Amino acid sequence: MTGRKLLITGAGGFTGRHAAAYFAAEGAEVTAVLRRTVPDESREPLFPEDVRTYICDLNDGEAVKKMIEDTAPSEVLHLAGKNSVPESWRSPAKYLETNVMAAVYLLDALRSRTEVRLLVTGSRLKFNPGAGETPPHPYSLSKTLEELVSLSWGTLFRQQVLIAEPCNLIGPGPSTGFCSLLAGHIARSEQGSAQPPFRLSSRQAQRDFLDVRDAVRAYDCILKQGEPGNVYRIESGKPRSLGEIAERMLSLTWADVRVEWGTESGQKPEKVPVSDAPKKPAGASGQGAPQSQAESGCFPAHASALNWHPEVQLERSLADILDYYRSNRKGASP
Amino acid sequence: MTGRKLLITGAGGFTGRHAAAYFAAEGAEVTAVLRRTVPDESREPLFPEDVRTYICDLNDGEAVKKMIEDTAPSEVLHLAGKNSVPESWRSPAKYLETNVMAAVYLLDALRSRTEVRLLVTGSRLKFNPGAGETPPHPYSLSKTLEELVSLSWGTLFRQQVLIAEPCNLIGPGPSTGFCSLLAGHIARSEQGSAQPPFRLSSRQAQRDFLDVRDAVRAYDCILKQGEPGNVYRIESGKPRSLGEIAERMLSLTWADVRVEWGTESGQKPEKVPVSDAPKKPAGASGQGAPQSQAESGCFPAHASALNWHPEVQLERSLADILDYYRSNRKGASP
Repeated sequence: MTGRKLLITGAGGFTGRHAAAYFAAEGAEVTAVLRRTVPDESREPLFPEDVRTYICDLNDGEAVKKMIEDTAPSEVLHLAGKNSVPESWRSPAKYLETNVMAAVYLLDALRSRTEVRLLVTGSRLKFNPGAGETPPHPYSLSKTLEELVSLSWGTLFRQQVLIAEPCNLIGPGPSTGFCSLLAGHIARSEQGSAQPPFRLSSRQAQRDFLDVRDAVRAYDCILKQGEPGNVYRIESGKPRSLGEIAERMLSLTWADVRVEWGTESGQKPEKVPVSDAPKKPAGASGQGAPQSQAESGCFPAHASALNWHPEVQLERSLADILDYYRSNRKGASP
Repeated sequence: MTGRKLLITGAGGFTGRHAAAYFAAEGAEVTAVLRRTVPDESREPLFPEDVRTYICDLNDGEAVKKMIEDTAPSEVLHLAGKNSVPESWRSPAKYLETNVMAAVYLLDALRSRTEVRLLVTGSRLKFNPGAGETPPHPYSLSKTLEELVSLSWGTLFRQQVLIAEPCNLIGPGPSTGFCSLLAGHIARSEQGSAQPPFRLSSRQAQRDFLDVRDAVRAYDCILKQGEPGNVYRIESGKPRSLGEIAERMLSLTWADVRVEWGTESGQKPEKVPVSDAPKKPAGASGQGAPQSQAESGCFPAHASALNWHPEVQLERSLADILDYYRSNRKGASP
């Protein structure tokens, strides 16, 4: 044991599962927060055995207070939240409730525990109201307010609030990001199931992809060494085109998978092919918001100079994703 | 009838009662939204007879949707909200719920009704995150987010959202602003009740006081002619010291009322005398936030060039406030 007591919200999600396993392996006492009990089924368990789970609706302020009292964490990694741009157009109020108020209730529950370090995962799709920008979508609005309220709260109540802004996270596990969708498609093709062409909106569009395991290590660095009030961007630093990623992944299979590219101009969420956009993992939305929007954010975005560097090679990430879907038929259909 | 169907939230409050009476007199069909049924007692009714009331918890998204369906307003004047700086330090999460999410639920309920004009009352105590400012108190944070979310939402969903930022509103009626507290104190002294000295934090502190009836006319102008997306500041343009106001009001009574001035440096809410600060009417907080904070706000603050000018003289306001407390013993004890 390291003496660290870590509470992870959104622990049932793509990043959350990796985070719970990583911190438990590091010797921390991990409590994984889930919104509801996981149905008893034949799948493999979500977490290693030494990870405790705690059921809590983060939109219930009193329940959040009780959770903090019950678990008395030394650190909180707040990964919970909604992160689909198209869905945010349909349910904008829900996005504000979930992404903003859940952070508020956590911050409020931690108000008298100023020794606790809280890492909130923001988004690079935030906008900068101070520069006269308007949000490109409700998801951006919700994440912008979440960061703003978290940093402001930290200042008002002298709490140790840190923000991480990850790029597109990829890796093995149930994700609905582009790489995972393509890997699932390939795995189904390899298993003999006839598949329609895999559709993508743009071959040229560039994104920064980072392995989720690298991101989790970055969260650890920030929790350990980050300066409260700072925003840490987490990225590989090497943007890649979707075309390159698709080609690399297709080179890993013998199956004959066809990829169709949509119009380059399809910016509106309703025009994005279903296979590309919905339900992205946190911070990994690909609505093509210009990089400058994130860079011109309200707060100084500090590069992660915390002695953290990506370690997982892209080839390894892609192979692991494909293996995940090859060995996990249930997970193969998103 | 003018064909206007106006929904007023927070209608039971100081400004809300004036607004309901004004718009009803102007011929609008007014629905006054209250959080709960007014207890049946011997006081005078809150509103003129032709004003309908509607009970709604604005933090219940579904209830807000039903209210909009039931009432089908052409205009909404959103006055509801919490507005005490000291209380916001004690219940910050409640302030964000009430001031931010209520606006979100209103905006969401109006999403398909883009013909409806919605006037949200912001606050001049907002801060400018884009300029690296941090909020001076949770109330400021909540009002800053309320404005930001309202204007952003208006842009995202092409709704007609307008913002008003009133200064300190004064006038007859149940308010807990400085003028009303002093008037109540004077009225009780006149009625023979022994009163301790009236305590105020600062004699020199300047504030812009405006009669609430002028503010309501300004809201009408903005609802009629304002440009969606704009922020309208509503002020008399003549800041006055608290000392001047107190002297003018004391000149209206024969009673011997003593006023004691506190330390000029008392900025922290816990140091502000009880009689000065708590439960101020919307936008009328006197925590002494520098004017520059409001002026440097995220959004262009447009002066009210809508052919609106203050009409009620300060003398008239002060006399009316005092008369209100003289004739309203029940209301005299805050």
